[in-house]
Formats: sequence, C-alpha cells, structure tokens
Amino acid sequence: MVYATADGAAGRRLRVGMVGGGRGAFIGAVHRLAMRLDDQIELVAGALSSDPSNAAASAAELGIDPARSYADYRMMAETEATREDGIEAVVIVTPNHLHAPVSTAFLEAGIDVICDKPLSTTLSEAEALVALTAERRRRFLVTLNNTGYAMVRQAREMVAAGEIGDIVAIHAAYIQDWLTLPIDADGQKQAEWRTDPARAGESAVLADIGVHAFNLAAFISGRTAEAISADLFTAVPGRRLDDNAHLLMRWSGGVRGTLTASQTSPGHYNDLSVRIHGSKGSLEWRGTAPEELRHARYGEEARTIIRGGFGATDAAKRVSRMPAAHPEGYIEAFGNYYRDAATIIRAHRAGTPVDPAIAALVPDVVDGARGVKFVAAAVASSKAGGAWTPASFG
Amino acid sequence: MVYATADGAAGRRLRVGMVGGGRGAFIGAVHRLAMRLDDQIELVAGALSSDPSNAAASAAELGIDPARSYADYRMMAETEATREDGIEAVVIVTPNHLHAPVSTAFLEAGIDVICDKPLSTTLSEAEALVALTAERRRRFLVTLNNTGYAMVRQAREMVAAGEIGDIVAIHAAYIQDWLTLPIDADGQKQAEWRTDPARAGESAVLADIGVHAFNLAAFISGRTAEAISADLFTAVPGRRLDDNAHLLMRWSGGVRGTLTASQTSPGHYNDLSVRIHGSKGSLEWRGTAPEELRHARYGEEARTIIRGGFGATDAAKRVSRMPAAHPEGYIEAFGNYYRDAATIIRAHRAGTPVDPAIAALVPDVVDGARGVKFVAAAVASSKAGGAWTPASFG
Amino acid sequence: MVYATADGAAGRRLRVGMVGGGRGAFIGAVHRLAMRLDDQIELVAGALSSDPSNAAASAAELGIDPARSYADYRMMAETEATREDGIEAVVIVTPNHLHAPVSTAFLEAGIDVICDKPLSTTLSEAEALVALTAERRRRFLVTLNNTGYAMVRQAREMVAAGEIGDIVAIHAAYIQDWLTLPIDADGQKQAEWRTDPARAGESAVLADIGVHAFNLAAFISGRTAEAISADLFTAVPGRRLDDNAHLLMRWSGGVRGTLTASQTSPGHYNDLSVRIHGSKGSLEWRGTAPEELRHARYGEEARTIIRGGFGATDAAKRVSRMPAAHPEGYIEAFGNYYRDAATIIRAHRAGTPVDPAIAALVPDVVDGARGVKFVAAAVASSKAGGAWTPASFG
Amino acid sequence: MVYATADGAAGRRLRVGMVGGGRGAFIGAVHRLAMRLDDQIELVAGALSSDPSNAAASAAELGIDPARSYADYRMMAETEATREDGIEAVVIVTPNHLHAPVSTAFLEAGIDVICDKPLSTTLSEAEALVALTAERRRRFLVTLNNTGYAMVRQAREMVAAGEIGDIVAIHAAYIQDWLTLPIDADGQKQAEWRTDPARAGESAVLADIGVHAFNLAAFISGRTAEAISADLFTAVPGRRLDDNAHLLMRWSGGVRGTLTASQTSPGHYNDLSVRIHGSKGSLEWRGTAPEELRHARYGEEARTIIRGGFGATDAAKRVSRMPAAHPEGYIEAFGNYYRDAATIIRAHRAGTPVDPAIAALVPDVVDGARGVKFVAAAVASSKAGGAWTPASFG
Repeated sequence: MVYATADGAAGRRLRVGMVGGGRGAFIGAVHRLAMRLDDQIELVAGALSSDPSNAAASAAELGIDPARSYADYRMMAETEATREDGIEAVVIVTPNHLHAPVSTAFLEAGIDVICDKPLSTTLSEAEALVALTAERRRRFLVTLNNTGYAMVRQAREMVAAGEIGDIVAIHAAYIQDWLTLPIDADGQKQAEWRTDPARAGESAVLADIGVHAFNLAAFISGRTAEAISADLFTAVPGRRLDDNAHLLMRWSGGVRGTLTASQTSPGHYNDLSVRIHGSKGSLEWRGTAPEELRHARYGEEARTIIRGGFGATDAAKRVSRMPAAHPEGYIEAFGNYYRDAATIIRAHRAGTPVDPAIAALVPDVVDGARGVKFVAAAVASSKAGGAWTPASFG
Repeated sequence: MVYATADGAAGRRLRVGMVGGGRGAFIGAVHRLAMRLDDQIELVAGALSSDPSNAAASAAELGIDPARSYADYRMMAETEATREDGIEAVVIVTPNHLHAPVSTAFLEAGIDVICDKPLSTTLSEAEALVALTAERRRRFLVTLNNTGYAMVRQAREMVAAGEIGDIVAIHAAYIQDWLTLPIDADGQKQAEWRTDPARAGESAVLADIGVHAFNLAAFISGRTAEAISADLFTAVPGRRLDDNAHLLMRWSGGVRGTLTASQTSPGHYNDLSVRIHGSKGSLEWRGTAPEELRHARYGEEARTIIRGGFGATDAAKRVSRMPAAHPEGYIEAFGNYYRDAATIIRAHRAGTPVDPAIAALVPDVVDGARGVKFVAAAVASSKAGGAWTPASFG
Repeated sequence: MVYATADGAAGRRLRVGMVGGGRGAFIGAVHRLAMRLDDQIELVAGALSSDPSNAAASAAELGIDPARSYADYRMMAETEATREDGIEAVVIVTPNHLHAPVSTAFLEAGIDVICDKPLSTTLSEAEALVALTAERRRRFLVTLNNTGYAMVRQAREMVAAGEIGDIVAIHAAYIQDWLTLPIDADGQKQAEWRTDPARAGESAVLADIGVHAFNLAAFISGRTAEAISADLFTAVPGRRLDDNAHLLMRWSGGVRGTLTASQTSPGHYNDLSVRIHGSKGSLEWRGTAPEELRHARYGEEARTIIRGGFGATDAAKRVSRMPAAHPEGYIEAFGNYYRDAATIIRAHRAGTPVDPAIAALVPDVVDGARGVKFVAAAVASSKAGGAWTPASFG
Repeated sequence: MVYATADGAAGRRLRVGMVGGGRGAFIGAVHRLAMRLDDQIELVAGALSSDPSNAAASAAELGIDPARSYADYRMMAETEATREDGIEAVVIVTPNHLHAPVSTAFLEAGIDVICDKPLSTTLSEAEALVALTAERRRRFLVTLNNTGYAMVRQAREMVAAGEIGDIVAIHAAYIQDWLTLPIDADGQKQAEWRTDPARAGESAVLADIGVHAFNLAAFISGRTAEAISADLFTAVPGRRLDDNAHLLMRWSGGVRGTLTASQTSPGHYNDLSVRIHGSKGSLEWRGTAPEELRHARYGEEARTIIRGGFGATDAAKRVSRMPAAHPEGYIEAFGNYYRDAATIIRAHRAGTPVDPAIAALVPDVVDGARGVKFVAAAVASSKAGGAWTPASFG
C-alpha cells in the first residue's frame, strides 16, 4: 500500500480565512489542526472574534498578517474579494445562528464557503443558502466531518457495492454525557449558547450532535430521509432546549430505522455509531473505535475490518496515511475532509472538473440543508405527539 | 464469598411435570438442564408431545414412569391432581397458543404453573389467567428467565438503591439473525410456528423475543410501561408476521426510552441488551457478556463490574455458584430462576411465607400479562401510524 | 444444529463416589454441579472429609446413603469394590498431596479414577501412578477440565486440520489476583494449603494454575514439552512458595513459546489464555470469554468464531447444548469433561471400545504426569539460573 | 479542560533539516506529518535520498529551497552549520546502519540531532555517540515516539505516584504480522533492509520493534534493565536475521518480566502493549487502543481511563488536543514527541533551562544507547543458551 501522506503541496495551498475560532473558542482550533495536517491549506485572513481585541490577538498568535485580521466579517468578505491574493474560501466556525448570515456575505462576495454544521438554525435560511449557492455558482461545503473517516467511507462503498444486500434497517446514535449536570445554567460557555434557542435553534441536541448521526446514516446508506416520528425531551430541569431525542425514521426505498441523540448519558463521552442491517449482511461503525468496521455476512462469522488492513477497500486506502494499527483518529478524519474540500474548491476555481466520486464524499450545502430539515421535522413531529412527519429535502 | 452451589436438596425436591418438550422440541430440554442444575426439582410426569408415540418415547428417555406419561395434558392435570405423590407444579413449554388452555387446565386442577413466555397470544386470555390465578390462589410463574442472571439482578438492585439517580432513559434491544432468510417458508419447524398468526399471536418478533427485552427493562428499572409508539414491519417478503420492531416507549415516572427487536439482523446471533441512563450514572448489561455490568457514575470513569468480583452486590452474590471469571451463562441464569421458583412454590404449598424480596425476582402471571399487553399495544400503535398507545396493565 | 442437551440417561448413569469435597471445601461442589448437568452420573458414596462428623453431615446433605458415607478413603475403596452396586469410579478432590495415595488405593481396589490436578506433588508418585494404571488396566482420568470448553476443542481440531499451518509459537498464560495480599499468612484456608510445600508441592503457582495453562497449550497444539527455561519467584514477602512464574518453552517439532502464571496480578481474577501463531494463521482463546475463538488467516481480517455460530466445527458442535450467544460457561465445559469421562469409563467397564477421538479429548494419567514433570522441570530450571531443562515425559 | 491545540507558534518555529525520507521511503513522511501537526517546526533543508535526483525531486515536492537540498549529508551538515538561518536540528530517518555516522557528522557540526531508533547497529557506536553528545554539549533525541502517547505518559505518572504500589512484574510485547511470508526474499524494500545484518544490525526483530517495547516498559515503569535471558529465532526459513524474540527480563529494584517481539504473527498488524503489575494495582496500555489505560486497584473493579476523560491526570491533559472520545492516534502521539522535542532544543539553543519534567519525557541518546545494549544483551544471551546476561547501560 502506498500511504497517502499527502504532503508536498508547496505552492498549491488553498488560501482560506476564518470567521470565529478566536481565543476561548473550541472548534476553530480543531479546524486549524485538520487543515494543517496535509499542508494543503494556508490560513491567511480572519475575523476570529466579534471582540476586536480578541480578534487581533488571536490573529497575531496564528501568524496572520494584521492587515488581514478583521473585526467584522462583512468587511473581511468585501476586502478579501478585492485582493489579488485574497482568500479562496472562508471557514465559518461561529455559533449556529451566524452560519447563515456569514455564509451569505461570503457567497455574495464570490468566495467559496466551508461552514460548520448545522447549516442554519431555520429551514428558510437553509433553503435560501441552497438557492444562493446555485445562483452564484459557488462551492459551499459543510463540515459534517465524520464523513472523513476512512472506515466510514469504506462502509459507504461497501453498501453501494451491494455487500450487505438490500438495506432493511439503519440504527444511528450520538450519545454524550457533558450536559448531564445543568452546566448551562452555571455559565459554561460552550453549554450556554448551545442550549439557547436564539443561537442554537429549535433543538439543542439535534442541532449539535443529532445532525452528525443523521448525516452519517445518510452518507453510509446512500438513502435520504422521508419521515420522522420523534420524541424530544429535556432531562435536566430548567434547560431551555431539549437534550435528548428518540426518533423512528423512514428512509428512501422503504428502509426503517431509529436515531437517538443524548447529551445527558453518563458513561458515554462522545459515542457516535451507525449500524445498518441488510438482507445479506450488516455493517457497524463506532466513532470511539473509528479504525474498525464490523462486517457480518449472513452465514459467516463477523469480521472486524481494520483501516490499512487486509479487508480495506479503495475508499479507505485513498485516505490512509498510516499502516494498519497505527491508529488514525478524529483529526486525521477531519484532515481527510479538508484535503478533499481543498481539492474540490481548487478545481472549481480553476474551472477544471472535479471527480464526482470525490465530490460526493464531501457534504455540501444540500446535505447541510437536509440536516436542517431533519431537525425541523423532528421538532414538528415531537410537538405533534410523534406523528410521522415528512423529512425529505431537495 | 460462600458460593451458592446449592446442592444438597435430597428429599426436598419439587415434583414437577412437563407439557411439551418432547423429542424434536428445543426449549423443553433447556428447561430440564436448568431444573437439574441445582438438584431442587425432579421431573416425574409429562405430556411431552401431542403425538402419543413421541410422548411415550420421550418420557422413557427421561426416566419418567410410563404410568405418568400422558398423551393428553387434560388427563395429566386430572390424574396428577389426585395422586398422593402428584406433581406440585407443571412446566409448560408448548407453542404460544397453548399456553393459556394448558395453564387453565392445571390451575383448575389445583396445580401451580410455570409457563414459558409469552403468557398467551391474546390479551383476553392473559386477563383471564390473572383472574383465575387469583381466584384459585395458586402460584403462576412465567419463565422470563433472563431475570435469573446475577448481573441483571445486581442492576435491578443498584437502580433501586439509587446508584444512578433518577432514571432518564431506557434503551432495550433484542437482535437476532436467524430469520434473515425465509426459512419459515422452507418448513423449518421452529421458524414455521413462530411466524404463524394462529400459533404465535399477532406479532412474531415481539412475542418471541421482544417480550424478553420489555420484561428485562421493566425488571431492572422497576418501571411499568405507560405508552408505546411503534413501527412494526416485515423484512422478508412473504413472511406472515412481522420480524422487526422499532418502538418508542414511555415508562412510569416520566421515563422515556426505545425498544428494538429484530430477527433479521446478520451479525447478531442473540443480542439482548438493556442500557439505562440516570441523572447520576448509567448501567448497561448485554446477554452476550452476561457476567459483566458496565456502570458509569457521572464524574468518574466507567467500570465493568464482574459477577463474583469486588463490585458484586448481595443480589449477585446470592446466585453466584462460581468465583469471578469462571463464567456462568444462560443455563446458570435459568437455573437461578428455577431455584427461586422452586423455593416460592414449596413455600406456597407449605403455607409458609415467601420472602417478598425473592418473590419479586421471579416474574409471575401479572408480569406475563404485562408482556401480552405490551405486544397488543405495539401492534395497535403500529397499525395507527405510530400513535402513542396506552400500554399499562394491572 | 441438534443440540447435545444430553439428558435422557435414565438407568445408565455412572455410579461414582467422591473423596474430599465436604462442607467448607470449594472444588468438590463444582465437580458435583458438572456431573449433574447432563444426568449421566450419580453420586452414591463418599469419604467427603477427613473429619468424620463433617463427612457424615456432608453425605446426608447430598442424599448419600449413610451406609456408603465413609470416614476413611481406604475403607471406602475396599467396601465399594465388594458391593454389587459399588461405585464404578472415584472422584478425588482432596488437597494435592493426597491425590497419589488416594488414587493408589482405588486403583488397587479395581476402581477407575477421576482425579483433580495436579496428579501428584512429586514426579516419582506420578511415574508410579502411570505404571500402576497400566498394570491394573484401569482408566485414570485427570480433571484438567478446561479441555472441556467447546471452543478449546475446536481450536485443537483446527490446529490438527492444518488451519494455521506449521506452528511457530505458543503463548499461554494463567493470571489471577487472589494472592495479591498475604492471605495465606492470615489463615485463609484455600490459600493456606496451596502455599504449603507439604501439601502443594515444590511450586504453588504452577501446581495450582500453571498446569492448566500448560495442559491447554499442549491439548490445543498437539505438542509435547521438550525443555523449559524458568524464572519462578515470590512477590509477597514471607510466602512459603512461589506465586509467579515466567517461562520460556520449547515444544516438540521446534516450536517455541512462553508461559506465565501469576496469582498476584490485580485486575485479573482468573485469566487463562492460549495464543498460537502458525505459518498460515493464528488462534487465540481466553477463558474469560470462552464462547469465542479468535482466528486470523494471514491475508484476511481476523474473525471471532462463536460457539454455536456459523464458524463452529464438529468438535464444538458435539458439545454445544445451546444455540450461539446463549452463553455456556465454566460449568458446562466441566460437564462436557464429565460426560465424556462417563462415556469412556462405561465403555471400559463394558469391555466395548471407546472412540479414540473421544478418548483423546479427556486428559488421563499420562497427561497428569506430564503436568507434574512440567512443574518439576520448571523448578529445576529456575534453581539453575534459567538453564534449559528437559521437560518431556513418557 | 483547556485543550493544548498548540497552534499559534508563528515566528518561533524550529528550523530543521532531514536526512533520508525521500520518495519511496515510509517513515520520513510520518515524521513530517508529526512535525507539522502543531506548527512548531519548519523543514527547511534536506539530504532526502542518497540518489541525487530523488533527493532533488523530493525536496522540490516539499517546498525546500533547492539551494538547501543536498545530495550528501556531510555537505549538508557543513553548509547548514555556517548559514545564519541554518537548521537548528537534523532529523535522521535513514536505515539503521547510517544513524551513527550521520548523527556524528551533525554533532560535530554543532547541530542538535533527532534520530530514529535504533540509535545504532553496534554498541560501540552507541557508546561513542553518548560520549560525543556529552563532549559537544548538544541535545541528541531519539524518536522512541510511543512515549508521546497521552495515556503512556499518564501511566508513567501513575506509577511514579505509587498508584500501583511496588512493581512486581512487567510484561511488554510488540507483535506484528508483516513478515509472516518471505517478502524480504522477494525484494520488498522495507523488509529487505530490515532483515539484512549489514543494515539492520545483529537482530532484526529487536532493532525494528523490540526496542520500542523495551523503551516503553522502561519509560512507564521508571526502571532500567539489569539482565536478560533470551530465545531469539527465525520463523521463516532462509531469512537472514531473527523475526521472533522471547525474553525473560530482570529490571532494577528486583522487578521481573517478559518481553516478546514477533513479526510473523498473523492477526496482529501492529500490537504493542505493556502490562505492569504492582503490589497495589495494575496498569495496561495497548497501542491498538491508545486512548485507553486500563487500571485496576486491588480490591476494586478495573476501570478504563480515557484520554480526556474524568480519570485523566496532568500528564495526559498536557498533551490532549481533543476532548475525550474524539480519538487521537499515532500521529498525534508523534506530534507530542516533536512538540516537546522542539521545546527542549529551542531552550537549549537559547541557553534557557528546560523543565526537567519535560526533558524526562523525551528519550535521548542515553535511552537510545540503552536500547542498543538491550539488543546486544539479548543476542548474546540467546547465543549462550538463554544464560542471564547483563543488560544495563550507563
């Protein structure tokens, strides 16, 4: 196996700017780690904080030219759009409610967008972004980054190749514990905005983590959601939004399933999983052991496929940096996302065609909008006593 | 630790007879293994098959006196009731649709009943059995035998002791693969009757395995079901009953949950699990690794409690035969069920009080009826498009 | 699959007596559980304790005829040998140092022997027992009972069938924690005699558990030991015998290996494992998950074979009582041992041939003697600074 | 927890050059991934291949100034030593036999060294390097990079804090499968040089992977090796060097242990593990699940500590980039190594003191020499029939 160590990009790095992600933020730094891994991207501009002094200090720490550290994202969009060496894409890592307006500003400035999930906090915003992206003929990618895991991609490839036959059921779950106590009420910053309807949207648990489970189920299975019967609830008294979701799902092609999300489940730090049963076999992947893909063919003992190992397929090999059992993890998966995102955006800007097989691996604005529709449908169903509610988008 | 090896019952064995379980049957022999383990029970009579020659031959193999091998369960009930050394209890291991009539015959003959699950195939039968049992003042136990596992009992004890705080959510599942192919259409005996509405009832997957998951969730949590939103479906074309069930649950005390059952899931031979999240911690038990109980207290790393080990509580110690990591399994758990069942019935017949703590460990006719109600409510909800349907009994 | 539930032995039970195993003992009760499981054996006589009142009370509890409860094992041998309905075999579950004299008494009385391990505490005793057994033409079986596990037997069958090619290395280990503290010095009965040279022999850890690991490695691999380089030591100050052993092994056919045994390893209650690497594949079995056999073919992903599942071979199927993932455990494995032992002894007494394939599955006096030689060679090597010391027997 | 995302090093990057690691090499690219992760290091010069055209092309791909791409490592050392902006350290990723001469050249040129393991192929070279490093007062670090794992560092910290009491035994293993077939004879490049005595040294398996297990055991336990009894052998006929090693170990303070290494073990891609038993508890770490540390206190159930979780200690927190269960892996651990290495070398060059606690975390030339001594002692012991052979260095 030739490992895709993928360095050697000198002179061809994608120039990006970042909105959000200053000192005290969490996910922005994770994006930067992921971008840096394969040396395909350089961060040259930023509106890193709505607090000007934080923005400037954060930019300085990151070696960003002070002239390209902006206190305001609109100014950044306008200015960068006019520079010869302006950014080719913006990375948006703000709280949820800013995703739509910031994206809009950069799309209108003619700059491609890489935006964190959820795409927006309302369905109308999501629809508008899909339309605007098409109208401006830009690339708009959404960092539903778990799609970058090698074994997730292999699972998708195996399903598409018919390895498990016709899909019967999909069980997806994203279970965490970090909101078990009322830390939002106690002012913890990450918890506070995620449980605030004004910044997080109508559902906390689905917007924050449920959309990851939903997207992963769709990505691996190749199905789109058709209807949802939901039971959303709040385990912690006084919390302003839900923190648990139990869903029954109906997917295209007559596939049924369940999807659960919880942020109040002790013993589960960050437990994302997808299990798919088909007429000939099953696949199961779990984010806490991401190098493994459990595969059972009916009539044979189950086997655990290891990234880099004998059972790896092309989809996994293409994004393996290390041999089997030299574990790759979350940052590497995110790095895979960013490497492919950079390839797509560079090709788009160069006017060269992108391999559709690669384009399909990187969730875009439509995938993001599907996630927003998923949240909206689940909220509506739960309010309607679990009535099956349409969930398809696009 | 003094291990409950529990032999030494000479002269005090409970005399039982069996209906069903002749040659070619499966579960009857398993009951006999379980009964024999602790030497508390002797099998002295039987109507082992509706086929007289099978009945006689099966009885001979088991060393049953030919005079006490009956071709007909009604004759067995009447005759044994009149013998000085007649059976003290009957064990019923027939297909589902016979549970009610056979139980009725023995109750009416004044003989205690140990009946396999589900209690009956219709709710009206279940209600009648509950009433008849009370009226005749008999003991009627139902072999929801997974309650016999040491670590299941410890889980129940820990929940009751408040170890995980207030319960927030219960996730139960029973996943098998053995009906992945249409073996019922091909005449496989076990599959054939289990998917026949006339013998299995309205739901195959819930009557066969779903009730185990349901009962275990109730047993461990100490909750009773209040309402169900169900999606039942048949994965294998042409099958006469469902083979998959996806349920949202509401339990007493405001507890929510999910329950799934499947018999078409490759890679899962027999995968029963219950996971409970509470405000202070979580517990998870899985039938494929029954000696373990995963316990997480919020704020501490999860630990795996091992039967016989340092974290074992009294409930588990009482039914441990072997030291830690000398694995006990399915038969031992079933043996625990039978040992306690024998204790309860002997006490009842002797007119001595039974320790309520022990009585509560052995599911009875009311628990059996709750399972029948559970199936009926799920079937009704699924037909009603997933509408929340009342599921409480008694 | 037809499961070997194996009841129905009425009238053909093997009559056995037991020496040792009275109240307060541990392993005798475990033997009785195992014997009872398949209803092939009945316990009709005993010298259950060297304390006459304990012997009598223990016998009464077990329903043994008081006339056949003996205060002295020699009297038991003589008396039972003369009864028409005398025992066909004796089960010896005394401390180690009595194994040889008790076995000798019964062999000389013409009674077959089932003796716990180690066969004896000295090599000369072991050699004498092998010779006496041959001279008297009796069956002498040693309860190296882990050979009864279905997946251990399948591993043996797979090795013999060449599934892993030529064996390269064998790694065996038996790791416990129960002697981590000086409980022997504090009078704990089980610990006290096991660490007493007068009753346990020259090595505690090897006689108690090391011989199990050794026998299992030999049983699965089909190899015999040739030489040992050993490092035995005592972790707990003041203990009279070793509690840890680190061994390098050389087996027949040029196979190398390691073998470790410890009784002072926190976190390992009872952790017996054998891992074998061959030129084409590997097998690994672990007593804490005995239903599983990990099998890797070079060039394919490893698979976990489950007892009762699709990868089960004839050797495992023959001793499966339950379907896959209805876990069988320690008692069932011991029951397999006893069922085959009963078959062998009954055939021997009837003068009918025993299937050699079955005879090979039940360790006998020669296997027992190999274990004694193993202990002696390890002790000698350790004293000689780890020098390679011959370890073959017979 | 504040995560050590560690970017923001603009203007303070350590300037390094690389010897080896051109196109077609494996480990050089891995080093570059690790260096890049935290943006603390920039690669500005190289002698990337002994083949000049490969060297130049590789440098161009990496964006290295052509003027600083050297065809010869000696010229690189001399030239860089004279540049104002010359490299501050060299990273050596050549085959084993070049480690010593290349290191020597850079030490003599006054440039600090970061060298892959093993330090050298002979003990005399190792001794000379230790002496030269001291004489020239340079920093010489050896990439025994598994010491970079967060949970390895936590294990070391817990041992040092007395969490497991007095160490009794250390079991280390490094098991791979990639040399199961004679691929070295078939010309596979990585296999070919690693099994060539001229380039690998006296032992293949110990030089390639055994030293990692050895170093990790020493690093976590805080012990140094005193003596070795070894059995080295070659499983694959015709191979020029050993591919398997079974060792008994004696460590300082009376600690015993085993160490095994194999490159012909199917089912184990890359299975590095260390298990330590102490008088009060045990610790176990495994490279295939590096985010976990299994910890058992005697008297309590074992717990699995997760990087980033409630049981994480300062040593692990200092090098955590991501929250718990967002898996970090091999590259992140190597990145930790490089980040600390950069800190140490920058401080050394600035003449500022290095925190001794950090310095102790990064293996240096003495640790490297200990590994070479370990290999030499094992080879000598194996040749001497397993005689205990001194293994201490320095």
